[in-house]
Amino acid sequence: MSKLKRNERIAAMVKILCDQPNRIFTLNYFTEKFNSAKSTISEDIVVVKQTMEKMKLGKMETIAGAAGGVKYIPLTTKEQNRELLEEICIKLRQSERILPGGFLYMTDIIYSPNIMQRVGEVFASQFDYKGADYIVTVETKGIPIALMVAKATNLPLVIVRRDDKVTEGSTVSINYVSGSTGKIQRMSLSRRAIKPGSRVIIIDDFMKGGGTAKGMVDLMREFEARVEGIGVLISTKSPEKRLVNEYIPLLVLEEVQEQQELINIYPNPELV
Amino acid sequence: MSKLKRNERIAAMVKILCDQPNRIFTLNYFTEKFNSAKSTISEDIVVVKQTMEKMKLGKMETIAGAAGGVKYIPLTTKEQNRELLEEICIKLRQSERILPGGFLYMTDIIYSPNIMQRVGEVFASQFDYKGADYIVTVETKGIPIALMVAKATNLPLVIVRRDDKVTEGSTVSINYVSGSTGKIQRMSLSRRAIKPGSRVIIIDDFMKGGGTAKGMVDLMREFEARVEGIGVLISTKSPEKRLVNEYIPLLVLEEVQEQQELINIYPNPELV
Repeated sequence: MSKLKRNERIAAMVKILCDQPNRIFTLNYFTEKFNSAKSTISEDIVVVKQTMEKMKLGKMETIAGAAGGVKYIPLTTKEQNRELLEEICIKLRQSERILPGGFLYMTDIIYSPNIMQRVGEVFASQFDYKGADYIVTVETKGIPIALMVAKATNLPLVIVRRDDKVTEGSTVSINYVSGSTGKIQRMSLSRRAIKPGSRVIIIDDFMKGGGTAKGMVDLMREFEARVEGIGVLISTKSPEKRLVNEYIPLLVLEEVQEQQELINIYPNPELV
Repeated sequence: MSKLKRNERIAAMVKILCDQPNRIFTLNYFTEKFNSAKSTISEDIVVVKQTMEKMKLGKMETIAGAAGGVKYIPLTTKEQNRELLEEICIKLRQSERILPGGFLYMTDIIYSPNIMQRVGEVFASQFDYKGADYIVTVETKGIPIALMVAKATNLPLVIVRRDDKVTEGSTVSINYVSGSTGKIQRMSLSRRAIKPGSRVIIIDDFMKGGGTAKGMVDLMREFEARVEGIGVLISTKSPEKRLVNEYIPLLVLEEVQEQQELINIYPNPELV
């Protein structure tokens, strides 16, 4: 291939780096792909790095040494968090979302790939995932969120099932008590899914009593895995005491008043 | 903000366009963001467009008129398809994946965000989704694939449930017969999920008899929605007659021999 101009190298480099956040690309990868000298590529990287920082589009990290290279790290500002979370709140405050029993219809939002990609980047900016091995969630509604966190952090996703499936091989199952309803439920995970001694980050869509999160923490213990952090898209404001203590919610749902058609939800003040 | 240099504008533009495939960005969006003239932005777009084509990283489309602008469209070549699909096949041929009953353990692959993002782009390159309104899948293993197709096509994702949930509001449920086991199963979807008269693309992880896919087609009929295409990650080679006729598999599973520890799987020859 003919040599690329600087503009062209930069356009291609940004596409490649941002498509796979947190993956290290060696300088050799780019020198071969672009048929260019190492010094040239290094200069290109400086331009991309400065632009990302200037435009608040994330950051680039250069890793020295034999296994070195460059990677793109998604990073959101408080202003970007506020913009996204307020946008979600405005949608969630629509009174037609109220379902019998005071539940909220929100699958259209949590299944939106664009919104979830940005949510994934907000979560990735809150957790120190350098030593983490997996993003863990439980089916079903947590999956789109967790997949996008997995993409932003470049970690494999693990999905805990509510039932046993033949396609999972031998599994570990536990019973847990729903924090809000008090019902006993069951979750299971393939033995192959998580290596012993791993560190995981748990992601889910909703937390009330914390029973499901506690169940996942207990299940991780069966795999000798350590939970490094828990993130939920929405947590209710009450109860104050939950079955898990440390977690990061992006949104706080204070109340849903069926009669008055009022939904009180706002961004977690610590993130905006 | 001070004016950006061409290199910097191009770096930021690629990041913004590729982050949200198939979303139209107006020229005004970029003139404001970069504090630059329209003619300057138009020149930048030409550079980005040429680079994407030259490097086979997808294509850019310029839309004229008042609602006009520019968008990035993921597009994979046969060579890129072959590379990805062979990579998946090599992983799937590992004999330790064989489970009792001749099933294959493959959740680590279909939950990998990087692999699924590329799979999503391969599917997006196969379907004409210009008039489509939704990507539809059924829980659980199809979700990561379908979400990435939804991201590549910029269409909302709809997830059909195996059970009824209070958080879905009123639902439409149907019974369907599994094509391979003959068992009667049930799937349901919120009435709010799909507007009547919509067109949808169905995505799932695995097809054998085609019963689940047929169930989804029947369910879509209840919503007065038309199925424009069906894509599955893996279809078995037999049976020849299935409950649905037209579908695009990325991989074909010919056989799993438990005794000989042999897994015969290969890319769909039409795609590579």
